[in-house]
Amino acid sequence: MGTVAVVGGGVIGLSIAWRAACAGWTVTVHDPAPGSGASWVAGGMLAPLSEGWPGEEHVLELGAASLGRWPEFGDRLQRATGCDLFTSDGSLTVALDAADAADLRTVAEWVQAQGHEMRVLTRAEIRDLEPSLGPRIRLGLLAPTELAVDNRVLVDALHRACVDTGVRFVAATVDSLDELRADRVVLAAGSASARVWPGLPVRPVKGEILRLRARPGATPAPNRTIRGSVHGRPAYLVPRGDGLVVGATQYEADDTQVTVAGVRDLIADAEALLPAIGEYELYEATAGLRPMSPDNLPLIGRLSERVVAATGHGRNGVLFTPITADAVLAELADDPLPEAKNADPQRFSKEGL
Amino acid sequence: MGTVAVVGGGVIGLSIAWRAACAGWTVTVHDPAPGSGASWVAGGMLAPLSEGWPGEEHVLELGAASLGRWPEFGDRLQRATGCDLFTSDGSLTVALDAADAADLRTVAEWVQAQGHEMRVLTRAEIRDLEPSLGPRIRLGLLAPTELAVDNRVLVDALHRACVDTGVRFVAATVDSLDELRADRVVLAAGSASARVWPGLPVRPVKGEILRLRARPGATPAPNRTIRGSVHGRPAYLVPRGDGLVVGATQYEADDTQVTVAGVRDLIADAEALLPAIGEYELYEATAGLRPMSPDNLPLIGRLSERVVAATGHGRNGVLFTPITADAVLAELADDPLPEAKNADPQRFSKEGL
Repeated sequence: MGTVAVVGGGVIGLSIAWRAACAGWTVTVHDPAPGSGASWVAGGMLAPLSEGWPGEEHVLELGAASLGRWPEFGDRLQRATGCDLFTSDGSLTVALDAADAADLRTVAEWVQAQGHEMRVLTRAEIRDLEPSLGPRIRLGLLAPTELAVDNRVLVDALHRACVDTGVRFVAATVDSLDELRADRVVLAAGSASARVWPGLPVRPVKGEILRLRARPGATPAPNRTIRGSVHGRPAYLVPRGDGLVVGATQYEADDTQVTVAGVRDLIADAEALLPAIGEYELYEATAGLRPMSPDNLPLIGRLSERVVAATGHGRNGVLFTPITADAVLAELADDPLPEAKNADPQRFSKEGL
Repeated sequence: MGTVAVVGGGVIGLSIAWRAACAGWTVTVHDPAPGSGASWVAGGMLAPLSEGWPGEEHVLELGAASLGRWPEFGDRLQRATGCDLFTSDGSLTVALDAADAADLRTVAEWVQAQGHEMRVLTRAEIRDLEPSLGPRIRLGLLAPTELAVDNRVLVDALHRACVDTGVRFVAATVDSLDELRADRVVLAAGSASARVWPGLPVRPVKGEILRLRARPGATPAPNRTIRGSVHGRPAYLVPRGDGLVVGATQYEADDTQVTVAGVRDLIADAEALLPAIGEYELYEATAGLRPMSPDNLPLIGRLSERVVAATGHGRNGVLFTPITADAVLAELADDPLPEAKNADPQRFSKEGL
């Protein structure tokens, strides 16, 4: 075992650092403000099945594999830190119009054909399961195995686990990987990754998100993650102990300013799903930059003899955390993880990585 | 001259403390967090004429008298502190439908009859004056003498002026006026005033407000304060150096949680007035508690030999600041200010103050 420098202290970088330290590596995390980027803004929804779409087999496969690793990964982190990560059992995607309903049936058939559990629910079944949802809902798709985690508890827990296992933190931006003295380098800098590895096909996609708290007397929040498409915009509500996270807008932009139009649309979409949401407290509106890849699969694997990529996780960084950590640990041990082969960044090698 | 204890460190309490210290009193301000209440949340609009309504002669009279004192009060504070208070020259109230237009004409005639300057503007004149306003606007009412101030600059400037003139601050809540050792006490505790003077007819009315910043490339904000009634809800946009303040909701409530419905309504109303507002950054949403009186006039004057009230300013604390300070200083000199006589709290004396 030698030294590893992890560039980026979001959930991806922190989980790799923690696991590498547990495996005997001497680890340093380089980040001016660990945990303050997209990981902090995120919703924490783990919904690879609900987000499935015919043709995106590799995304579903990797997402389902990482979801399958979440219970063990989460348990281990909960045992190490005493924190409580999980906030939702199952997710329910709802359709507000006939076109959405047709899409849900398409997704259901395709995901079931890939061997995963999903169930189409009628309006009456939805009302029994989640009585607070809106009257415009026509059909639902239940994914009982999908989870959600509190992304901020996750950030804090990973940070604590890192400190407890001897990971060292350097609060500075890395301008060039050459300045790092470690034997191995893990590039987990999210949307900023291409800054230190020019040509890496990872671009920032801005997303805004709201955090709501149930006020005394307000209709209780749903127990499951609720997803839906409103006016063609995908919206989701992720339960928290005291309320909900509402996400997310999506723009090709690299600033993190919350816009009036973004907040307006998120509220309108959330109200269509859960009419009582007007009574909730809006205590935070934030924006983050998702590290998007061209094909919606992350970039996990060798960039060079010394450098391993763990970036490009798009909207699914929290979902992909366990399999990314496993894959990078396997890479550091020179024994690549077969399940992660479709995420190999060399698939873009003609673009001159 | 003796000692004065001012209970409450909002703009009312701070301005009284500053002026009393200048006049030779030894002054202490008691507030656990000076300047953090309604004064901090406010919009800073000084619009007594635009808010005029037949029958509310006393409110208009006091408001116009205080507006008249603002230039001198503001200049003095600006000279003392070097700060820059004023953010708007004139206010423009617009009508979106026929009923609103009729109301504007009623207000214009009545206010003009009281001797104040107001001018009815056609749609074309409004477009020339403020081209960013929405196409639904039918008629406008311009009050060229009305001003707006940056309430947070005002809070900071008053605080600095107090410190510079030797005012002492005690960061604690006052539970009983009996515990104060000063010769004279000024009760300027806003919506909490009735807690220390039971029976005082001042109640909290919650208001939510948004703070927006123009983003690069966004349509510039108007130069004047823009007021309008949207779906029967009064809305206003107050210019700031870098954007706008949007206000305000109004509820009979005593919490300061920002609600989803409040933010939704404020955005919708602001968009009806200024359609480009969706492009702006929403960087803050806050709620404050206005100290409302039963008749929309503040309570300024003697409660007892020792105690002077300066509270109940409702939505107009910033507007009423100069005349309140003058009236309380006059009261401390045992020479009451005639212009403030209608604000005498003894008008409620049958209620057992």
